[in-house]
Amino acid sequence: MTSRNTEKRAVILLSGGLDSTTCLAICKAEGFTPYAISFRYGQRHAIEIQRAARIAARYGVEKHVIVSLDLGGFGGSALTEMRLDVPKHQTVEEIGQEIPITYVPARNTVFLSYALAWSEVLEASDLFVGVNALDYSGYPDCRPEYIQAFEAMANLATKSAVEGHRIRIHAPLIHWTKAEIIRRGLELGVDYSETLSCYDPDPSGRPCRQCDSCLLRMRGFADNGLTDPALDLQ
Amino acid sequence: MTSRNTEKRAVILLSGGLDSTTCLAICKAEGFTPYAISFRYGQRHAIEIQRAARIAARYGVEKHVIVSLDLGGFGGSALTEMRLDVPKHQTVEEIGQEIPITYVPARNTVFLSYALAWSEVLEASDLFVGVNALDYSGYPDCRPEYIQAFEAMANLATKSAVEGHRIRIHAPLIHWTKAEIIRRGLELGVDYSETLSCYDPDPSGRPCRQCDSCLLRMRGFADNGLTDPALDLQ
Repeated sequence: MTSRNTEKRAVILLSGGLDSTTCLAICKAEGFTPYAISFRYGQRHAIEIQRAARIAARYGVEKHVIVSLDLGGFGGSALTEMRLDVPKHQTVEEIGQEIPITYVPARNTVFLSYALAWSEVLEASDLFVGVNALDYSGYPDCRPEYIQAFEAMANLATKSAVEGHRIRIHAPLIHWTKAEIIRRGLELGVDYSETLSCYDPDPSGRPCRQCDSCLLRMRGFADNGLTDPALDLQ
Repeated sequence: MTSRNTEKRAVILLSGGLDSTTCLAICKAEGFTPYAISFRYGQRHAIEIQRAARIAARYGVEKHVIVSLDLGGFGGSALTEMRLDVPKHQTVEEIGQEIPITYVPARNTVFLSYALAWSEVLEASDLFVGVNALDYSGYPDCRPEYIQAFEAMANLATKSAVEGHRIRIHAPLIHWTKAEIIRRGLELGVDYSETLSCYDPDPSGRPCRQCDSCLLRMRGFADNGLTDPALDLQ
């Protein structure tokens, strides 16, 4: 093994939403020096990136990079194509069991691949991702078996792994309900008023309250006997 | 399973080098309709992309997309950082056993992730990549175990795989010597004068004849009793 930096560096995927912000708080609480990475991939709203940058600054991440992707050019998702409508519901129970149109093809694979590339340059062996397999929208790349398979692949893919620096993909939220994620975040002092989870916010960042992500988040706060502070700001 | 297109679509990584061009010829010979993807990732020379575009046109690929990556911004490789020199040697025997400085962090993982995203939009289940584990420079992401791990991950990552369309990563050259690759390509009518493999060509595309890639290629032609036609053009 070659010598490495002495601090515990970690690369974290940061969208500026509730999950990734909680994941960042956990990453710091575990003693890692976080390096945050966010992606412009043809999202409908640039406000998401602004929130990520603000949260990165507040948590004092060592460095925050914003990578522009061509992913939207492939098409195929309501999150990247303006002509497709984001599905809206009145209650969580209406959310279907099928993989919805808001799924972005291979998104987490592309995001984690970039994080892996950067981690190798940083000599970091730890990657954090706020995926969640419980209160989620049925995306295949949010499941534990997917994360394990990515980790196995990463440990064969890189020079540093081959040289003995085992890569770990941390997905601390993966088995938690949205209510449990929020509870842990509040213990760690996360200010959720700054986080934005909505798939279809208005240009000023106000959530729609009707997309899958809004509904799951509102129920998570309700299960804790709380109101979503992001709604209070409206 | 949902219905799919009837043609056998495949996404192929195309750099315009000897290996990926041979791989494209094999892809076509196996009856696939190829969709080619190339990457601008801060390479030293844009000539590589021009060659890829010319080869894509000559082989009549259905579509050729050129994706711009921020990968070079992370640094860490002689292929993307101008201040690092590409190692030069006089003979193949001088090429070291260590992973060289021309290694680009997680490159094939990032490339294959994009190919996976595009394949899902195209409803293609087959990806072709011209990696080679024998006459190569020791890159970890060119080994069979890496390709297998990526395939396993891909089959957990995507909506189409979850719906029953098993993804296959084809790496037909992986166990061949450079001489065997060239022999197969010549059988399929590949014109190697157009392919560019050099890590450090001059701006007009003339190979340096001294980098690992040039030396391996020259020996591959010599083993077939031939001279590299790309050198004849000089």
